[in-house]
Amino acid sequence: MAHPVSPLAPKFYPELPAIAGVAFATAEAGIKYKNRTDVLLVSFAPETSVAGVLTRSKCPSAAVDWCRDNLAGGTARALVVNSGNANAFTGLKGRESVRITAGIAAGAVGCTPAEVFLASTGVIGEPLDAGKFAGVLETMAGRLADAPWLEPAKAIMTTDTFPKLAGATADIDGHVINIAGIAKGSGMIAPDMATMLSFVFTDAPVAAPVLQALVARHVKTTFNAVTVDSDTSTSDTLLAFATGKAEGVEPITDIEDPRAEVFGAALADVLFELAIQVVRDGEGATKQVTVNIEGAVSDESAFRIAKSVADSPLVKTAIAGEDANWGRVVMAVGKAGEPADRDRLSIRFGDILVARDGERAGSYDEAAVSAYMKGDELEVTVGIGLGEGRATVYTCDLTHGYIAINGDYRS
Amino acid sequence: MAHPVSPLAPKFYPELPAIAGVAFATAEAGIKYKNRTDVLLVSFAPETSVAGVLTRSKCPSAAVDWCRDNLAGGTARALVVNSGNANAFTGLKGRESVRITAGIAAGAVGCTPAEVFLASTGVIGEPLDAGKFAGVLETMAGRLADAPWLEPAKAIMTTDTFPKLAGATADIDGHVINIAGIAKGSGMIAPDMATMLSFVFTDAPVAAPVLQALVARHVKTTFNAVTVDSDTSTSDTLLAFATGKAEGVEPITDIEDPRAEVFGAALADVLFELAIQVVRDGEGATKQVTVNIEGAVSDESAFRIAKSVADSPLVKTAIAGEDANWGRVVMAVGKAGEPADRDRLSIRFGDILVARDGERAGSYDEAAVSAYMKGDELEVTVGIGLGEGRATVYTCDLTHGYIAINGDYRS
Repeated sequence: MAHPVSPLAPKFYPELPAIAGVAFATAEAGIKYKNRTDVLLVSFAPETSVAGVLTRSKCPSAAVDWCRDNLAGGTARALVVNSGNANAFTGLKGRESVRITAGIAAGAVGCTPAEVFLASTGVIGEPLDAGKFAGVLETMAGRLADAPWLEPAKAIMTTDTFPKLAGATADIDGHVINIAGIAKGSGMIAPDMATMLSFVFTDAPVAAPVLQALVARHVKTTFNAVTVDSDTSTSDTLLAFATGKAEGVEPITDIEDPRAEVFGAALADVLFELAIQVVRDGEGATKQVTVNIEGAVSDESAFRIAKSVADSPLVKTAIAGEDANWGRVVMAVGKAGEPADRDRLSIRFGDILVARDGERAGSYDEAAVSAYMKGDELEVTVGIGLGEGRATVYTCDLTHGYIAINGDYRS
Repeated sequence: MAHPVSPLAPKFYPELPAIAGVAFATAEAGIKYKNRTDVLLVSFAPETSVAGVLTRSKCPSAAVDWCRDNLAGGTARALVVNSGNANAFTGLKGRESVRITAGIAAGAVGCTPAEVFLASTGVIGEPLDAGKFAGVLETMAGRLADAPWLEPAKAIMTTDTFPKLAGATADIDGHVINIAGIAKGSGMIAPDMATMLSFVFTDAPVAAPVLQALVARHVKTTFNAVTVDSDTSTSDTLLAFATGKAEGVEPITDIEDPRAEVFGAALADVLFELAIQVVRDGEGATKQVTVNIEGAVSDESAFRIAKSVADSPLVKTAIAGEDANWGRVVMAVGKAGEPADRDRLSIRFGDILVARDGERAGSYDEAAVSAYMKGDELEVTVGIGLGEGRATVYTCDLTHGYIAINGDYRS
C-alpha cells in the first residue's frame, strides 16, 4: 500500500561524498516488496571500528541480539540490512536466520561472521527466510560502489515516504574528514530508541571505544529525543562505522582528545538531521513540532515532561487541528508525574505567550496564535518555573493519515 | 459539535432506584452548551459520609483542590457539578470561582461550604464565571427530586455520546441497601484516574473511613484499569456518598466488619459497570478491548505491561483495522520496561492461540482469528511466562473518529 509522500519531505536530497573504505550495493531480494530494492550490503576496509546503540525493548529482534554480541569486538567488515521483515519474535528460527545470513555475508566479503552486522525492519512475527539472501549477497559483493548514497537510503525504507540522508565534514589535523548517514523510520517511533535504523559512515580514524562514547552522548539529543507515536520498536539500531581511511589524520583513541570533540560535533549534526527527517516523515505527519521544557527541577525531569507533551494524543490532534490548545499542554505536563506547580507554568507557542502564572496571559491574542498554528514547523515551550532543567523533544502531529496507514486494512 | 453515538452504547438505560437521603436537580446555566442541562445539584441528608479519589495530575483543577480539602471532613451535604468548563488552569480566578460557587450552594441547601463538593468538566484554561450559578442553584434547591437518574447523568456529559448509569443492591442485616452511580468520560481517559467524573450514592450507613478504604480498593480494578488515550485529566473525580438512611441497618464503622465486604462487592460492581461504559464511549471507539496479562513477575508489573499494550497507538489502530497484529503486541510488551522474556511469550486473541514460546503458534489459523477480530468485544491475553502476576486493563480501539473529535476543528 503506497501512502502519499509527507508534505514535510525535503525538496531535494543532499549529494553525500564517498567515504574511503566504504562500498555498498543494493538488490531486490523479494522479501516482501515487489519492484523495489529491499536489501543493502555495505563492506568496510579492514580495521574499521564500529559502535552503536540498540533498542531497549525487552523483546528485541534476532538481529539486535546479534549486533549486541558483535559490538563487543569493535570491528566491522560488513553490514547487511533488509526491509520487509523485521525478523523479530521469530524464536529459534530467527536466530538461525541471522546466523545463516551472517555466514553468507562473511563468505561474500571475506571476513568472519563476528565482523558482520545485521539489521532487519518490517513485519514483526513472520519468519525471515535466510535463503532469500543466498546468491544475492555474493552477486552484490561483486558490484560494490561508493555512490550514490540515495540507493542504500531507499533500500532500507518501509512505511517511509522519502529516503533519509545527511552528511557533514570536519577539519581534523588540517585535513577534511567526511561523514555520511542514512536512516529509515516513520512509525513505531519513540525515544529509546526511535523505531528506526540508522547507519553512519566516516573515514575518520576513531577508535571503537571513542566512537561508542560519542554515539551514546549524541543520541540523547537526537534519535532519543524524537517521538512519532510513543511506540518503541523491537529493532531500533544505530550503528556508526569509522574506516580510518581519511588521509593525514592520526587515530583518535582517547575521548579526552580535543579532536574527539570536533568529530563528535559533526557526528551530532548528522544524527540530528537524520532524526528530524524521521519526525518529518512520521506516519501521517503534516506538522513538525518542537517541544521545549525550561525551568524543570532537572534536565531528566524536563525530558520526561517534554516526552509526555510530545506523546500526548490530545496535544498532537489539537496541533493537527491548528488549535493552540494550551489546556491540553497543561494536562500533559500534569500527567508526567514530574515536579510541577500549576500556578507557575508559562506556555508559549512560537514566540507568543499564551499562558503564565498558571492562567491565560493578559496579552493573549487569539488571532496571532491562530495564524502561527497554520505553519508547518511549530514550537511549544513550557516554563515550569521551578529550576534550571531543560530538554527538547521533537515530534509531529497526529492525523487521519496515521490511522489510515496503521488501521485501514480490514481484511 | 455533535458526534455520532458510539456503536458500543447500551441498548437501554437502567432504572436506578431512589436513594433515601439523596435528592437532585439539573438546570441550564448556559456555561458553554446551548439547549441542554449543564449543571447538577445534589443534596444529602445530614451526616452523609463521603469518600473519594482525585486525579494525580500535578496540575489539578481548582475543584479538585477544593474536594481534596473537604474530604478530610468526611461529611457532605451538597454536590455541584458543571459541564462545559473544567475550571482548570485558571489560577487565582479559578480558586475564587470555586469559593463563590460553594458559598452559593451552601446557602441554597443550608450547610457550610466545607460540606459542599464540586466538580467541573469541559474546556481547560478558560475562566469559569461563578456568576452563572447565582440564582440557578437557589432555584434548583427548590425543586429537588429523587428520580429519574438519567437527568443528572445527562447534565454532566461533555464529549460523551451517551449517559452512563449503573446500580446495585446488597443484602445487609436482612435489609436491602441501594447504590446508584453516574459517570461521564470519553476522552482524556487513562488510569490514575480515567479522565472522568463519577458520583456514587448509597443509602447504606458506611462511615467515611470505611467508604474511603473501599473506594480506594475497588478503583484499582475499575476506573484505574481503563484507558482510552493515555491522557490523564486535570479534573478526575470519583466521589461516593453514603446517607445511612437504609432502614434497619446498623452503621458499618470498621473495614474488618464482614458487611463492609458485602457492601464493597456491590460498590465494585457499580464502579466496574461505569468504568466500562466510559471505555465503550471512548472517543471514536468501535471496539471494546480487554487486555489481560498473566505470568508477570508481579501484579504491579502485569498492570504496567497491560497498560503499555492498551495505550499503544499501533495496537489500537491494528484492532480498529480488525488485524490480529501480534507483532505490535510484542512491541508493546517489550517497551513496557518490565521483566519479559521474548522466547516465553504467548499471545491469545480471545481463545485463539496465535503465538507461543516467542513465535507464531503451529496451530495458528488466520481465518479463525480474522473472524474473531470482526467482533466488537475483543480480548487480548499475553502470557509472560515468568511468574504469577496478573492484571487486566480495559480500552478501546483508535480510529478516525478519535482524530475527528479531537483534531477536526481548524479555525
